[in-house]
Formats: sequence, C-alpha cells, structure tokens
Amino acid sequence: MSKYDLIVLGSGPGGYVAAIRASQLGLKTAIIEKENLGGICLNWGCIPTKALLKSAQVFDYLKHADSYGLTVNEFDKDFGKVIERSRGVADGMSKGVQFLMKKNKIDIIEGLGKLKPGKKVEVDGKEYSADHIIVATGARSRELPNLKQDGKKVIGYREAMTLKEQPKSMIVVGSGAIGVEFAHFYNSMGTEVTIVEFLPNLVPLEDEEVSKQFERSFKKAGIKVMTNSSVEKLDTSGKNVKATVKTKKGEEILEAEIVLSAVGIASNLENIGLEDVGIVTDKGKIVVNDFYQTNIPGYYAIGDIVHGPALAHVASAEGITCVEKIAGLNVEPIDYGNIPGCTYASPEIASVGMTEKQARDAGYEIKVGKFPFSASGKASAAGTKDGFVKVIFDAKYGEWLGCHMIGAGVTDMIAEAVLGRKLETTGHEVLKTIHPHPTMSEAVMEAVADAYGEVIHL
Amino acid sequence: MSKYDLIVLGSGPGGYVAAIRASQLGLKTAIIEKENLGGICLNWGCIPTKALLKSAQVFDYLKHADSYGLTVNEFDKDFGKVIERSRGVADGMSKGVQFLMKKNKIDIIEGLGKLKPGKKVEVDGKEYSADHIIVATGARSRELPNLKQDGKKVIGYREAMTLKEQPKSMIVVGSGAIGVEFAHFYNSMGTEVTIVEFLPNLVPLEDEEVSKQFERSFKKAGIKVMTNSSVEKLDTSGKNVKATVKTKKGEEILEAEIVLSAVGIASNLENIGLEDVGIVTDKGKIVVNDFYQTNIPGYYAIGDIVHGPALAHVASAEGITCVEKIAGLNVEPIDYGNIPGCTYASPEIASVGMTEKQARDAGYEIKVGKFPFSASGKASAAGTKDGFVKVIFDAKYGEWLGCHMIGAGVTDMIAEAVLGRKLETTGHEVLKTIHPHPTMSEAVMEAVADAYGEVIHL
Repeated sequence: MSKYDLIVLGSGPGGYVAAIRASQLGLKTAIIEKENLGGICLNWGCIPTKALLKSAQVFDYLKHADSYGLTVNEFDKDFGKVIERSRGVADGMSKGVQFLMKKNKIDIIEGLGKLKPGKKVEVDGKEYSADHIIVATGARSRELPNLKQDGKKVIGYREAMTLKEQPKSMIVVGSGAIGVEFAHFYNSMGTEVTIVEFLPNLVPLEDEEVSKQFERSFKKAGIKVMTNSSVEKLDTSGKNVKATVKTKKGEEILEAEIVLSAVGIASNLENIGLEDVGIVTDKGKIVVNDFYQTNIPGYYAIGDIVHGPALAHVASAEGITCVEKIAGLNVEPIDYGNIPGCTYASPEIASVGMTEKQARDAGYEIKVGKFPFSASGKASAAGTKDGFVKVIFDAKYGEWLGCHMIGAGVTDMIAEAVLGRKLETTGHEVLKTIHPHPTMSEAVMEAVADAYGEVIHL
Repeated sequence: MSKYDLIVLGSGPGGYVAAIRASQLGLKTAIIEKENLGGICLNWGCIPTKALLKSAQVFDYLKHADSYGLTVNEFDKDFGKVIERSRGVADGMSKGVQFLMKKNKIDIIEGLGKLKPGKKVEVDGKEYSADHIIVATGARSRELPNLKQDGKKVIGYREAMTLKEQPKSMIVVGSGAIGVEFAHFYNSMGTEVTIVEFLPNLVPLEDEEVSKQFERSFKKAGIKVMTNSSVEKLDTSGKNVKATVKTKKGEEILEAEIVLSAVGIASNLENIGLEDVGIVTDKGKIVVNDFYQTNIPGYYAIGDIVHGPALAHVASAEGITCVEKIAGLNVEPIDYGNIPGCTYASPEIASVGMTEKQARDAGYEIKVGKFPFSASGKASAAGTKDGFVKVIFDAKYGEWLGCHMIGAGVTDMIAEAVLGRKLETTGHEVLKTIHPHPTMSEAVMEAVADAYGEVIHL
C-alpha cells in the first residue's frame, strides 16, 4: 500500500493548488481525479466560459466596427469554431495542470476515490494511505424538481458550453454569474435569450444599483429580462420546450429550443465515503474549522463542499491555508469578508465587501461615493461609458466597507480594493494614491473622492 | 480690476483640477486659457490618442477574427473617420471641462496670460489680481536642431493625430510613450513604420526586461526597430523625407513620407512674464518647494513646468496639493517615488517604483519575482498571452520597491501596486490577498509568490 504525507481527493483549483503548495513544503503528495485534471473550473467553468465570452466580445466589436471608424461588410460567427476554441483553451489548461503535477512530483491517481477509516482512500479497489487527506470534490449543477435536466433540451452549464448547434432561442433560468454569462454569450451570438430570475433583481447578490445598471444594459442588448418570476413547469414533448413562468402579473408560457438551468450548484458529497469515516456534514456542506479540519483528525475539506462562496479563488486560498497549517507554518484564517466576486458578462461586474443595504442593515452610518464611467476620459476614448464604481465607507472610523464596480474590464480592477481593504486603508489614503491617467482605474479614486465631497470630474 | 482668491494660468489637467479643488475649498477662482479648455492632455494628448489606439485595437481584432472562431471577409479602416472619432472624443472632453468650470463657478478668461509683479496677470491688455497665482502652462513637443518640424513632412504629436491622409511610411524618432503609441497606431492602420531610438532599448525608462519583451512584440507586429541609433539629418527636398540615421554599424539612409519627432517635450516658460516677476527657473523648469511655491510669495507652479515626471496625473495631484496647502489644509508632499507610468501601445506597459537595475544600483539586496501571462488562465482564454508582471522587493525589510507590467490591460492593473506601496504592504500581504479567478490581476499575486518561492502556476 502506497503511503503519502498528503492525499488530495479532487483536482479542481482547490485540490491541485493544495497539492502544489504541499509539495513546495516538502510533503509527499498524491492527487486523485476521476475525470480531467483541473476539475470543473478549468474544464467546464471559469476558463472555457471566458474563452466563449472573448469570442462574443470580438463579435460585438465586429457588429459595432463603424463606431470606431472601421468598415466591415461581411462577417459571421462560426459557432462550431467558437466552441472548439473554448475546448482547446480548456484542454491546454488541463495539460498545464498535468505539467505542474509532474514538475512538483505529485502522483496522479486516476479514478473514483472513496474515503476509508484510518486515513485511507480506496481507488478502484486499491488502497492508499496518508497522514493527511484533503477532500476537494467540488460541486455540480443543481437540479430542481421542476427543472429536470435531460441534457438535450433542458441543460446545465456543461452542455451549454458544448452545444453542437447554436439554438435559435434559449431560456436561462437563474441570473447568478453562470446564468448571465451564458445569457450574454448566446445573445451576442444571435440567439433569442430570455432570462428568468426568481428574485427582484438580476445578479441578486450584488449591490442593488449594480443590478439595476446591469439590467438596463442587458435590456439594451436585446435580452428579455423577467425578474420576480419562476419557472413552474416545463413541457418538453414538442420540438421546443414550453415553460410555464409564474410572474407577478400571472402565468406566462414561454417557448424556446433550449432551457438552461443555472439555479446554483450542489456539493459532490455522495459516494466518497464520508459516512464510512464518520465525517459530519450540515445542509449539504462538510463541517470544518478555520483551518479546514473536519471532525475526524487527519481529514480535511476545502472548496465548494465547505461553507463559504463557491469560487475557484476561494478554493485555492483554502487549499493553501489548509496545507500551510498542516506543514506547521504560522497561518491566519481566511477573511471571508474580503473575497472578491466577478461576473464576466457585458458589462463586467466585480465587487468586494458589503453592499449598501448590507452596510445599513448592519447598523453602520455610511459614506457612499459613486463615479460613473460616462465621466471618465479613458472610457470615452474606448467607447465603454456604461457603468460605475461605487464605494462604501464607515462614516465613523473610515473603514472601507464595500466596493462595487460595473463596466468594461472591472474584473481586473477590483484587486486594488481587496488589497486596500486587507491593509485597512482609509479613504483618504486611496484618494492620495496617484492613479494613472487616463485609465478606468481613476474611477476608484474619484468614487472615494465623491464619498468625501472632493470629487473632481462630476 | 477683477480680484480673485486664485488665478490659474493654463487649463490642462494640472490647472483645471487645481481650479476645481480651489472652488470646492471656497476660493473665488479664475482660469486663463489661450486655446481649448483641458490643455494638451485632453485636446492633443492622453485622450485623443487613446481614441486612436482603441480604433487600432478593434482593427487588430478584425484582422485576427478567425482566431476567435469568427469570419470577416471584407473590412477596412476609414482613416478620416478614425481621426474624426478621436477629435470628437477630445471635443467632448473639452466641453466637459467647460461644464465643470461653470458648475464650480470658476471664471474662464480667454487669452494669453502674462504674469505681472504684485500678484497680477495681464490678459489681452486687461489686468486681473489674486492672492494666489498658479502657473500651469504645460509643455510642447521638443524641437531638436536636426529634427526641425515643418508641420508637413516632419511633424510633432499634434499633426500626428490629425493627418488628412494616412502616410504609406513613417519614421518615428524617439521611443518614449508618445513615440511608441503612434508607432503602434500607424503600424496597425497599415503604415510601414520604423522607430529610431538613441538608447539601447525601446521605452528606455522601463525595466530592461519590459523593454526587451516590448521590442519582441513590436518586431512581431512588423515594426522596424532601430535602437542605438540617431537621426543625424533630414533631407525634405524630395517627395519623401530622407533621413540619415547613425547606427552602430555605420550610417543608413531611410526614406519615408513622414517623420514624427517624439524626442521629448519642452516647458512653456516663454512670454508668460516669469522674468518680470523674478521667478527663478533652472534647466528649463520653474523652481518650487514641496508645495509648489516659487521663490516669489503668492506665485506657484505645477505640472510639466516643474521638476518631476511630465504626466497628467502628476500635474493633477500637484494642483490639488498646492491648492489644499493654500487653503490651509494639513497636506503631505507628494511621494515622487510612487508615481505610476503607463504606455498604451500593444502590449500595454505600466510600472511604478524602481526598475531592477535602479534597485541594485541603489544598493538593495532584492528579491525578484516574475509571472508570465502565458501561464495565466484568463490570458489563455482571451488570447492575450504576451507579457508578464515583475515585482521587486527589498530582501531585508520586505519593502515593495518596484512593479513592472507588460500585457493586455495592465494600465488598469497598476493601481493595486501603487496603493499597496503607499500603504507599505509586505509581499506576504499581497500574497494573502485573494485575487479573483480568472483575471489578469492574479499575475500580481503570482509574481509576488514567485519572489518568495511560493508561486503556484509556474
């Protein structure tokens, strides 16, 4: 029986990053994966969708080339090639993880891993043992009873990124990041898209002003938006799917070739031996402490299967924290109040910390600042004037409670706010940080200035 | 005679920002401008060039549409419309400044202002007086004796952004930001471009690795690069200009329709009354203290006419600092060691702090980290794998000495490093700041990790 210092079950960003960090720290490490290395994120999530969205962005440039002084007479998308490019990017990333495993001398064990008592894992009848076992099995598309996925007409994100033919029409159910990214992609490609959201706003976890701006942009782009609405039942007997949607005004029947269910995810906790070992779960998540130890010594869990936002960057950070603690380093727990979230539709959304409502509900007296990209020189030059940066500060002690951005390229701009918040910056320090001109990032400085009555360009 | 609390001479970003801040602080303010509001930056610099560069970017997308799964059969640029769009953006920005002046109740005095003793300014024979006078007259394209500009065949940046016809060929002399941005723009539009740089590297103020990478990208894009070379003389007698270029291998004669001189700028210090008032200058700059006071009480100078980098964001910060000091606020001097610089060619460049060579020359023992975008998932998905982020830390105390970026969108990413450095972050704090996945900004975290032997994706 092979014996390791560490076995990681699952090779998504939580798992493979944990394995690499462990190897750096001198732990003899193995990783178990039943499918492609890199998990959902690399193969069926973050990465291939960004490839699709890039094609959509370029396609949108083709459509609007004349507004940049360019002429395009004949152009089209080749849907098959757009998909193919995305798969190629995903394959390349998965091979990259393979390379990293080899370089870091991490054993790859292919197959379905099942935890056993006594710090063992069984894979296809073979047992492996380790001093520490990290479970990082991730999550899958959640299935609701009234949105049963058949993989053909009613699909999840996996099918949505590998359709053979572009559908003429699509109903997207759910307007979290996955839902709106696909809605944007298919709409841009020319599919007639309707998005149905149960809550009053699209991207309902974002600050309400961001949601409202996003909804305006979506509608302007030609997407039919139905909020306060829910799909009650689906009839898949005909050529098209018929969806019965309950709205505030009564029931409505929608028809589309495809229904994409994007109503969240479910942790992969089944058939991995949790019960055999006696690992405690609660509401579909494994219960862990600040350093990802389960109730059974030697067993750890990270990523989508534990409490906290189901995001790749969170899983990676958890993997590193978990492994550094195992290796005896001096580690601080992750601050779950300072995790950025990004949505890569058009416009992009990026945010960190509290929304205005959350801050008010928590009893803070706040200063709010907002700077629209319509007042930004760079945005004017680039033709990307939609959106804004909004900041929220505690009026009393100056803490930067939240930062919310919507606009072109904001997913690459939120890191400033995350770092500033980690370093406990005041608004005045952000204000006195010279931001380069002309950039979209000046909007952060101006929004902070607005919060303190010192905005220049408004 | 009209009496003000503050008169600002010149309405570039230094001047108009100073005027707005002064108005916010209750000072009765006037601004004098002989041309368009907004100065060079808005009318002939930062903003209109970014508009041109956006057209170039979209045009490059058209050329490479097939790599995104798209097909374009017939496309072209309309050079006149590209220029027209850029002028429209500049006009819009200038009108924006006009609006801001009005909103802030700042008097606009049109004409050529000339300083007079006794805190007065004369404009077209009329005198205005103020308690404080800020000089912010900016700079213009520098003329070298062997690069005399005739505005037709031998031009500066102003003509370069308003040419009636696209030239078939162009020699760009000088490879600072202005030179390489126009070289990129014209090359992208289809002009045959040669760039001549006196020093051994393009963008010679940047970290050498950045310069080398940039040169590779420029050559790949088809631009002819001549470093260690200087234009000795120009013969403008024929249809084309003949340029005698001295290289390490001897003299070479180049021919092109247009020569663009981008060999730096010269401060506008002439005919503004400096001598009448007795304001001291040194090496073509007005001498000021930390709060921009000249040797004569009541007279101040900011922007390109004082020592320090001639950048719009520096001028604005100087204007704010100067005015806040005048108004009696508690102000800290600007830290000139923490000013970002950006170049908007393709790839973009952004940097702050010391280069590796500067840090070594200053006697630091350093830790250097580098993360190439070729290893970034987002860059793979977007097809923007050229470039890297490089960070330099002091090995002993952990100070973040410098950050250097080259790649797509990095001009919007440098603010994180500027803020981090202002807040005296350590590398470890950047490393433990959760950067969203997948973004280009992860490369900052990974570069820092590389400096400390903890990089994951290399």
